[in-house]
Amino acid sequence: MANGEPGGLRPDTGRAEAFSDGVLAIVITLLVLNLRVPVTEPGDLREGLLDQWPAYVAYVASFGNVAVVWLNHRAAFARLRRSSRGLQWANLFVLFTTVLLPFPTAVVSRALQDENLTDQRTAVVLYALANILLSVSWAMFFQYLMRHPEISAEEVETPFFRGERLRSLVGVVLYAVGALIGYLVEPLLALAFFVALPIFYGVTSTGLYSLRRVTRRFGR
Amino acid sequence: MANGEPGGLRPDTGRAEAFSDGVLAIVITLLVLNLRVPVTEPGDLREGLLDQWPAYVAYVASFGNVAVVWLNHRAAFARLRRSSRGLQWANLFVLFTTVLLPFPTAVVSRALQDENLTDQRTAVVLYALANILLSVSWAMFFQYLMRHPEISAEEVETPFFRGERLRSLVGVVLYAVGALIGYLVEPLLALAFFVALPIFYGVTSTGLYSLRRVTRRFGR
Amino acid sequence: MANGEPGGLRPDTGRAEAFSDGVLAIVITLLVLNLRVPVTEPGDLREGLLDQWPAYVAYVASFGNVAVVWLNHRAAFARLRRSSRGLQWANLFVLFTTVLLPFPTAVVSRALQDENLTDQRTAVVLYALANILLSVSWAMFFQYLMRHPEISAEEVETPFFRGERLRSLVGVVLYAVGALIGYLVEPLLALAFFVALPIFYGVTSTGLYSLRRVTRRFGR
Amino acid sequence: MANGEPGGLRPDTGRAEAFSDGVLAIVITLLVLNLRVPVTEPGDLREGLLDQWPAYVAYVASFGNVAVVWLNHRAAFARLRRSSRGLQWANLFVLFTTVLLPFPTAVVSRALQDENLTDQRTAVVLYALANILLSVSWAMFFQYLMRHPEISAEEVETPFFRGERLRSLVGVVLYAVGALIGYLVEPLLALAFFVALPIFYGVTSTGLYSLRRVTRRFGR
Repeated sequence: MANGEPGGLRPDTGRAEAFSDGVLAIVITLLVLNLRVPVTEPGDLREGLLDQWPAYVAYVASFGNVAVVWLNHRAAFARLRRSSRGLQWANLFVLFTTVLLPFPTAVVSRALQDENLTDQRTAVVLYALANILLSVSWAMFFQYLMRHPEISAEEVETPFFRGERLRSLVGVVLYAVGALIGYLVEPLLALAFFVALPIFYGVTSTGLYSLRRVTRRFGR
Repeated sequence: MANGEPGGLRPDTGRAEAFSDGVLAIVITLLVLNLRVPVTEPGDLREGLLDQWPAYVAYVASFGNVAVVWLNHRAAFARLRRSSRGLQWANLFVLFTTVLLPFPTAVVSRALQDENLTDQRTAVVLYALANILLSVSWAMFFQYLMRHPEISAEEVETPFFRGERLRSLVGVVLYAVGALIGYLVEPLLALAFFVALPIFYGVTSTGLYSLRRVTRRFGR
Repeated sequence: MANGEPGGLRPDTGRAEAFSDGVLAIVITLLVLNLRVPVTEPGDLREGLLDQWPAYVAYVASFGNVAVVWLNHRAAFARLRRSSRGLQWANLFVLFTTVLLPFPTAVVSRALQDENLTDQRTAVVLYALANILLSVSWAMFFQYLMRHPEISAEEVETPFFRGERLRSLVGVVLYAVGALIGYLVEPLLALAFFVALPIFYGVTSTGLYSLRRVTRRFGR
Repeated sequence: MANGEPGGLRPDTGRAEAFSDGVLAIVITLLVLNLRVPVTEPGDLREGLLDQWPAYVAYVASFGNVAVVWLNHRAAFARLRRSSRGLQWANLFVLFTTVLLPFPTAVVSRALQDENLTDQRTAVVLYALANILLSVSWAMFFQYLMRHPEISAEEVETPFFRGERLRSLVGVVLYAVGALIGYLVEPLLALAFFVALPIFYGVTSTGLYSLRRVTRRFGR
């Protein structure tokens, strides 16, 4: 996790990365607990499994969601060379909002399996709110990195963090649009939107690139 | 997790390995949650524990399954020297299919404790489908490594990844055979087959060998 | 996690840090399992979600709690250069008391959603007791570090550990005050107090600072 | 987790340690899920909490148990310099038996809260059996290390591993004695025995010592 500097203190982003990796790995894995064995009459297991399709869709949406959080996290921390007070707060706030995700995922899974339109609206709005909170935490995280270039590696320029902050703020808007679609038009349409968003963010994530290549593009 | 290169960005497979280790460690441990305290009349705990033997068998099968995923993962990543966009996608897809495993494991455990043949068939087919998806994700992962030798360590030759891809594709066939046996012949026979497969894959896994020895055999 | 020293044994705080990071990451993530999908009549999901607000408050309090444990842990271990028998015991005792936290959190969440004052008093006293135990474990941990300067890095002086021990002992007193407020005055007031305490500890935590800056302040 | 050797494969116990740390951290944390909010009449929460004291005792016993597994694991792996096929199998078998522990812990917790003597006997025998399996897996692990000195660090001598194997085999006997006491005499007496055993193993564990000191004592 950290190289022992002979007789000294150790570089200090190592444990923040290890702790965050742990938290994100657990959140992404806990999502499977929302997939339950359906309670059915003997012989109806197949129908029961098919009927809970919204749970599978919600699982895919949230898995993609947390995967993108991890890719962002990795891309951001690879550009840092040391820690700071504000970085720890910002990172813990990102983890706080990410750890929440299994809860709205469970609410959406359950509500979309029931027939009640009011509850379905409530559920997709809750899901959107949780993701807006997550996007806000990322925007604050990148805002902090923009304002504190002294903790970044030398080759990283502010435009990178500015771009990432913009992506986070666009997320706030897009999830608000999703909430409106779900509330005013059709909850299932919002669900489709919620699956598509992480794919969009995944495809555009710099965390997916080899960092070496990224350095060449952004770091110069 | 990553050595700080003085003033630079860090090598980039470290966090993918740490995150994957975390995810796989959690998946393999969550399996125990399928072993429940049986609800029995006073004095019948022993019978209740014995009656849920299919849950124990499913636990063994899935533990072996995830253990082999980890061995494969370790063997593959030890042969890489850097990350890339496609590698991150391929790795996240492998994790996605592995994280699913506790769900079909729970379904099989429950269905085989009930008497209904239709439900038992459904359950073993679901279990096989989840494993086919897992095998497909591995085949895609090794396919990617075959096509992108630039991210591998120099001593690794393409035949290694080709062999691993073949093993994955054989898995698709074998789990399909298991599903057919379970559907057409007898679900319990399929369960025995599902326990045997990870053992077969475990024994033939290169992840079990000391990597040094592997280098000598495959890397030259 | 640990550099291989050629032909030798490896520095020995690495695995204690990795194991502790894992435990703390899991504890902080398990807290979300206390947020349940409310069981409501069709159409009442929104009310059901709002009614369980004590669960959200307890989640925030315990998340902050574990986050501060992690910050303390990181700040303390960054000042060590090797392990010892007593350090392992002290660390395992801190982990033992931290792992307990989801239990009183669940009890408080449930009790504050019910109307019964006696049960609410019981719950907040239990929550305070668990945190007193946690504070005692930290006080013992820092007491050990004070008495064994031979395992600390050379630049670290005893006043640092003495200060941290004092903060832990203050925690014992503050949580006892919280228990009294909850028991004699009003359980909900105690809950507000329990949310405020981790914020206070977080703001004053040295774990939040860049360790380099900390070295300059404490290590000389 | 592993230093990148320039252009080569990486030392190969790193990921086995990281994966094992993850698994053990999760097992030790999952134990808290056995502590449930008691279902009681309004006003009876305090009695409900006190009535489930066997769950607290079982939690302490199993926490101590897994802590000792981790200490053993750390002490053993610190003495290795590379991996091998057999080591991976032996390690995965140790993890397999450790991951099982929350299940008998839950069974004991539940059975000792009920009044039925037959069920209590069943539960303590199951708990002992799980621990005998765990002790056997450790004995096999150390047996393997005894027979394969080529994977150990040079300073480690066989007597160390022989001593650890003996400790594991003594565990088999002691847990069998505990099972007999629980079956023939009194289940609660067995529970006290099960709490005492990890303390005994913890106190005598070499994993608690600074590895440097251990080297001096065992490695020469």
